[in-house]
Amino acid sequence: MTNKPMQAPDFLADYAKKLEASVKKVMAERKQVVEPRLWDAMSYALLAGGKRVRPALVLACFKACGGINESVAMPVAVSIECMHTYSLIHDDLPCMDDDDLRRGNPTCHKKFDEATAVLAADALQTLAFELLTHIDTPADTRIELVRRLAIAAGAQGMVGGQMMDMAADAGGVQSVLEVERIHLHKTGALIRYSCEAGALLAGASEKELHACSRYGEAVGLLFQIADDILDATATSEDLGKSAGKDEAQNKATYVSIEGLQRARELAENLRSIALEACDGLLKQGEDLQALADYILERGQ
Amino acid sequence: MTNKPMQAPDFLADYAKKLEASVKKVMAERKQVVEPRLWDAMSYALLAGGKRVRPALVLACFKACGGINESVAMPVAVSIECMHTYSLIHDDLPCMDDDDLRRGNPTCHKKFDEATAVLAADALQTLAFELLTHIDTPADTRIELVRRLAIAAGAQGMVGGQMMDMAADAGGVQSVLEVERIHLHKTGALIRYSCEAGALLAGASEKELHACSRYGEAVGLLFQIADDILDATATSEDLGKSAGKDEAQNKATYVSIEGLQRARELAENLRSIALEACDGLLKQGEDLQALADYILERGQ
Repeated sequence: MTNKPMQAPDFLADYAKKLEASVKKVMAERKQVVEPRLWDAMSYALLAGGKRVRPALVLACFKACGGINESVAMPVAVSIECMHTYSLIHDDLPCMDDDDLRRGNPTCHKKFDEATAVLAADALQTLAFELLTHIDTPADTRIELVRRLAIAAGAQGMVGGQMMDMAADAGGVQSVLEVERIHLHKTGALIRYSCEAGALLAGASEKELHACSRYGEAVGLLFQIADDILDATATSEDLGKSAGKDEAQNKATYVSIEGLQRARELAENLRSIALEACDGLLKQGEDLQALADYILERGQ
Repeated sequence: MTNKPMQAPDFLADYAKKLEASVKKVMAERKQVVEPRLWDAMSYALLAGGKRVRPALVLACFKACGGINESVAMPVAVSIECMHTYSLIHDDLPCMDDDDLRRGNPTCHKKFDEATAVLAADALQTLAFELLTHIDTPADTRIELVRRLAIAAGAQGMVGGQMMDMAADAGGVQSVLEVERIHLHKTGALIRYSCEAGALLAGASEKELHACSRYGEAVGLLFQIADDILDATATSEDLGKSAGKDEAQNKATYVSIEGLQRARELAENLRSIALEACDGLLKQGEDLQALADYILERGQ
């Protein structure tokens, strides 16, 4: 088997295209009322590419729970992408990971300047919440989305995970449970929220919501393990970014702690959990299974 | 007349004390689920003192529009203080104003480190939104508060104003209208929102909401002009921080552009607008008038 990442499922590229069109529309609506350089930096970061996995999870879970009108779910997908993008901009800052490049392009603070990058990210977080207030769904559902997003993204979720990650780099994490705890917060919380948000918008039953939540949690960890495996095994050419970075930085990963074989077993196990969770969902849950497979295969 | 700031009205200190008790309660509830250093940095910044003008405006407007149960409005007051505190932390960063001290204490990035400060502020913004989802008021009102807060705090409001301010420092603003535009965004939007939020929570009539909004806009600008006058006229001893900083930094202010006399006239004018706006409100609107007077007198 080659390490070359497998082809993404067709619907992922299709969703990404729709997502980017919606992002452009949201930003165009604000062009007249936002300071130009700030607007440029926000747009630059939002439209810097990426597989748009989180938006795809919103849309796929929405459909798997019986949602039909994609335009209801799209603002939530844009909202999550704003939240994710803000976190990438701040993670790339000199005081954090100090990255000059992201997906081959200059990071926001390199393209603009640090102050502009800090503020563009700040405004993207705010925009993530603003967009939820406009969704064509009852106020109860909107406020539930705001609440879940805040918990997933804030001190108890994504931001907390980033702090744990920095503390781990400094103090030397040794156990796989600690690594898991970091990822459940840093990347897992927002991925799980993406799935739950799609379900909630579709008016999912308790059982469906639970299935999407369980799927999201498994896929969130799977995503991270696959990344760790990929970093340890792929060439830089395959990845399109430097491989072996984790080992060079002596970073605690599933692979460094458990070894490659065990990491692959864990990933297989998580895929099973994700696929099982989809059992209770509609036929469209097939897209979710394809996504889980895609995420796993990347790391094989 | 001395330049020494006048005594604040009693209720301001009273509200500040209650606000701080509520902040401590909100943070204590999260102590077990937030990474310790992140929790410390958030608490440190939130409890670093200040007059708590924005929370006082929420509570005073709430009462002036017939609100009775202060505990309904308090989470909104805490939410605004979280939002305001996040903006101060990011403003103080080396890449922005590069301040080592705030109110005589080390700024968050000096007390902790830059990465922690960035993240603590990020989490405080998220918390500001989360708190709004828990208020004991219908979902319609909660989502309206989220919407207005997002617009006041984001690219179209506070963050946009900070960008305008940086552009002005670089490019040399010359007109008082430009200065006003910056302040309406940078500080005015959140102050006006504070007033509107109090009114909305009290179930204000359209007329009352409009009065609070108008009051908030006037008081927001008054606050800034008073600050400019104070910076130009008070001694550092009076201020408790370096005076004359604006002139030393060649910063465009109401005083630098219009002169001291005209700035004082503008401030008087804004006070009149603020007081007139209170006319339509209940007896408790007296607190709002006292606040406007206090803000003005500080700058005389």
